[in-house]
Amino acid sequence: MAETFPLDAYLQGVARRVEAELRRVAEERARGGPPRLWEAVAYALLGGGKRLRPALACATAEAFGADAGDGSLPLRFAASLEMIHAYSLIHDDLPCMDDDDLRRGRPTVHRAFDEATAVLAGDALQSLAFEHLLGGEPDARAGRLASLLAGAATRMVEGQSLDLQAETTAPGLDEVVELQRRKTGALLAVAVTGGAIAATGSAQGLEGPGLLLGEAIQIADDLLDLTATTADLGKRAGKDAAAGKATLPGLLGVEEARRRAHRYCEEALRALEPLGARAEALRALARFVVARKR
Amino acid sequence: MAETFPLDAYLQGVARRVEAELRRVAEERARGGPPRLWEAVAYALLGGGKRLRPALACATAEAFGADAGDGSLPLRFAASLEMIHAYSLIHDDLPCMDDDDLRRGRPTVHRAFDEATAVLAGDALQSLAFEHLLGGEPDARAGRLASLLAGAATRMVEGQSLDLQAETTAPGLDEVVELQRRKTGALLAVAVTGGAIAATGSAQGLEGPGLLLGEAIQIADDLLDLTATTADLGKRAGKDAAAGKATLPGLLGVEEARRRAHRYCEEALRALEPLGARAEALRALARFVVARKR
Repeated sequence: MAETFPLDAYLQGVARRVEAELRRVAEERARGGPPRLWEAVAYALLGGGKRLRPALACATAEAFGADAGDGSLPLRFAASLEMIHAYSLIHDDLPCMDDDDLRRGRPTVHRAFDEATAVLAGDALQSLAFEHLLGGEPDARAGRLASLLAGAATRMVEGQSLDLQAETTAPGLDEVVELQRRKTGALLAVAVTGGAIAATGSAQGLEGPGLLLGEAIQIADDLLDLTATTADLGKRAGKDAAAGKATLPGLLGVEEARRRAHRYCEEALRALEPLGARAEALRALARFVVARKR
Repeated sequence: MAETFPLDAYLQGVARRVEAELRRVAEERARGGPPRLWEAVAYALLGGGKRLRPALACATAEAFGADAGDGSLPLRFAASLEMIHAYSLIHDDLPCMDDDDLRRGRPTVHRAFDEATAVLAGDALQSLAFEHLLGGEPDARAGRLASLLAGAATRMVEGQSLDLQAETTAPGLDEVVELQRRKTGALLAVAVTGGAIAATGSAQGLEGPGLLLGEAIQIADDLLDLTATTADLGKRAGKDAAAGKATLPGLLGVEEARRRAHRYCEEALRALEPLGARAEALRALARFVVARKR
């Protein structure tokens, strides 16, 4: 069944809706605020990317019977997730952090603008995520989603801090798992649990499967980085490999890491079985991101 | 009446309660997270300061009949305000922003730790503010407060961006007023409106008085900076004056700026008259911060 699901079209549909929402918000802000700041925000928000977190959120919401179309709470949540993700990339790229010149083949924000604007664009994107999600009169679901998103955002920063420490220590397997769980797993997991909350008001025991999927996707990402050529990803992949960044493929080897990602993914999917046919997009998406080669 | 209000004791009481809450949160996080990150957060949160925003929030909440003691929503909101304020100071001090070595007589966070940790500590403090305010199951008031706080946080970043631009342009009076309204006015105003929402669920037309108080306090702060010796404030005051930072005292002259601050303050206090005796702390606080000499 999952094989016949038109995943490409699904991903493109989510990306189109989320990007339209992100563009609308950025343009609205640019009209009343400092042009350079909001240009930098728009540059970061609309520079491409797989929109994986929004797709996970929308697919989960739909698996629970919700609409994730324009103007829906799942889509609003999806856009807020992407704002938090975009902010984290801007700050990760800063000279004092990973010092990257390129992101998705374009100059990073501090290279295209300047360092101060990059710090501020990241800062503004974080508060904007909560503003956008909460609106003026947040209902209980929006409040719960914002609380969840804030928790994941804090854990993400903790993961980044652990990652910086790991450059000078030699972390073991447990530490690397914990680091990755926080750095990227937390936000990916929240895409899933938040999608369910947006749909039903509750995460319905989805925390476990959400976290498993988040970890599986993270390992798959690290595997991609290892096998990508430098040209594919800017100077990033080569640099991370050279710096001996703390990743599971690095510690376990490529084959064992790949097995682990698949096992986590299948465990998560088993937990989603009771959702039946409505979870088709979510299943196809999970299998795709864990197995993808680029 | 205001003359006999024991303002010192009141301010000390708020500072003690807010600092206990900030310390508790920082220690709780340090137990489960990366030590260096949370040490930097605690360093920034517990390095002194007037706790003016928390005092405004608590005094306004009390003016509307609420308790602002330990465990109350006004105090939780007050602590979150201080987290946002602390994050903004850490990032403002960064080398790519104001490049300050000292803050309140101590090394700034990027000097005491390192630049990456300073970026991350600011980032973590921003999400922590929303996490702390919203808790796990936010009620309608907490949701509304978080929405308000997020809006003020975005405006604050806009103000900082305008301030950076102002270093290379020569902004006129209107632009400087707008810049200050966003950079510091928004968060000060939200201390007042948020205090009312925490108490009653509504801001009850307090937006105007809140903004006037915010502007009055900002002018008073700029006046202090102008008259302070370099030793009082680290190298900050001298540097700002030398850089010809965009301030109202700079544009209007000291006397006219002082008159304007007093006029805004009295206008705000007139709007608070219907609150009667319960607003005594708020009135005393407003008059104190606008008239203070150090």
